[in-house]
Amino acid sequence: MKDLNDLFLHMLKDVYHAEKQLVRALKQMSKKATTPELKQAFETHREETIGQIERLDQVFEILERAARGVPCEAMQGLVAEAKEVMEEAEEDSVMDAGLLAAAQAVEHYEIARYGTLIAWGRQLGLNDAVKLFEATLAEEKKTDQLLTQLAEKAVNQKAA
Amino acid sequence: MKDLNDLFLHMLKDVYHAEKQLVRALKQMSKKATTPELKQAFETHREETIGQIERLDQVFEILERAARGVPCEAMQGLVAEAKEVMEEAEEDSVMDAGLLAAAQAVEHYEIARYGTLIAWGRQLGLNDAVKLFEATLAEEKKTDQLLTQLAEKAVNQKAA
Repeated sequence: MKDLNDLFLHMLKDVYHAEKQLVRALKQMSKKATTPELKQAFETHREETIGQIERLDQVFEILERAARGVPCEAMQGLVAEAKEVMEEAEEDSVMDAGLLAAAQAVEHYEIARYGTLIAWGRQLGLNDAVKLFEATLAEEKKTDQLLTQLAEKAVNQKAA
Repeated sequence: MKDLNDLFLHMLKDVYHAEKQLVRALKQMSKKATTPELKQAFETHREETIGQIERLDQVFEILERAARGVPCEAMQGLVAEAKEVMEEAEEDSVMDAGLLAAAQAVEHYEIARYGTLIAWGRQLGLNDAVKLFEATLAEEKKTDQLLTQLAEKAVNQKAA
């Protein structure tokens, strides 16, 4: 990796792989969640994530590069933590609280990554790509806020 | 895992392991960084992280449980990404921009985790633990903001 273009392309591929892993994980999380609002939040965010992958496809097009991921070890670890909850929760309420926390860790990871892609994209003058990332970042932040509300009003109390 | 106490203790152990991994990683990152302010930021946060581990020790004491970690796969993935930058960056400026981005992903992971520990701790009435987590969360957010400033004013421009 010799310059910011290389870093940018590498992170784009990393996030592309991460979002694809997440679509699969959210499907399982939505199945396992028991509080209806949480189930719905995972399903809604799964659909949003599919749209976010399409935006990443557009950025690959802008760069005139093939849309291809590289394994994202951080997301693999985050998804492994969600799977651990799915395997080990013995009560519905514990499942929901654990999955919600796992999802918030995922959202924060993505908020960091899109924040970096926006900063690097601006530096590289990739204004159209920056606009696409900003749309996705707004969705990630909204999802995180929704999850915080659900935790406070519905999920954590049941688990306590 | 049967209730919120189990989830809380498991996440405490997970974060304990994560912070210990991070102390080692920040030492390497501080060595590899070339911009003096970034080097200093990593070193300062390494010292803060040692203090954060001491706060986690105090929470284990409050719970009357042995302070012990469980492998945190998410942090393992995040640290692996930082190591990849250390191995593959061919220019100082690329090293700095890549390490800074890796550190911000780590900070966001921790912001999510301490946010969850605070919410669960409140639910469980663990007010002294909550105060300790709040002190750490403030440090994580401050570190993230400092890294954003460094990225904007010093690091990303050099890499472009």
